[in-house]
Amino acid sequence: MSDDAPDAAIAEAVLAANQAFYDAHEARSSAAMGEVWDHADRVVCVHPGWPILRGWPVVAESWRRIFAGPGRTQFILTNLSVAVDGDVAWVTLEENLVDTGPVDATGAVAATNVFARVDGDWKLVAHHGSPIVAR
Amino acid sequence: MSDDAPDAAIAEAVLAANQAFYDAHEARSSAAMGEVWDHADRVVCVHPGWPILRGWPVVAESWRRIFAGPGRTQFILTNLSVAVDGDVAWVTLEENLVDTGPVDATGAVAATNVFARVDGDWKLVAHHGSPIVAR
Repeated sequence: MSDDAPDAAIAEAVLAANQAFYDAHEARSSAAMGEVWDHADRVVCVHPGWPILRGWPVVAESWRRIFAGPGRTQFILTNLSVAVDGDVAWVTLEENLVDTGPVDATGAVAATNVFARVDGDWKLVAHHGSPIVAR
Repeated sequence: MSDDAPDAAIAEAVLAANQAFYDAHEARSSAAMGEVWDHADRVVCVHPGWPILRGWPVVAESWRRIFAGPGRTQFILTNLSVAVDGDVAWVTLEENLVDTGPVDATGAVAATNVFARVDGDWKLVAHHGSPIVAR
């Protein structure tokens, strides 16, 4: 069955990696962010409203720029779900931003985070965030 | 190496599945769209600006609503890349929309499409699209 619930221990490990991503973001730590991602050409990142960024050096630079900018960011993560297929997992969730910076960036972002198991550790290989437009 | 280029035959099969997704969208065919997706609880879809939709019945209904709406849609796909890890692949690209409907929806969308091999066929398990904001 392709839609079996993932093994609980595996799902827990994926969700820990996912939480580490948001912890790194909240801490505005490029070092912590570097621990989260696979350092490979295959990684891709789409920040809300941004074009596609590919390859770890380009993605890393985007985080350095974001962390160098104004504001502090806190997330309340809701509506989270995880699926696992072999050595790849995809997590979807809503990032409810509480940005205390000068720009009012409060709002909800839909995020898809893809993780791959690399030498036993779940590493982020794709992040895609997009603002949810109120309807 | 985690960032080896994918096997050419596998990449070709993934890209064929990816093209079938856009062909189904352009044809506004729920039947063709149904062939593209895995019919499972694990599937997720984020249309540009929309909240997260989960599970095939909910995702299928969203396509029916989109196809029932006004306008015709053509895509020019650019900046395409594919990565494969076991039985999962992720494709990223820009969808350059040429919407001839009453609403001016011309613009570029960054898309992440995740495929999983199900009984030998690559099926779409996650689609996330977000408008690229000109800067």
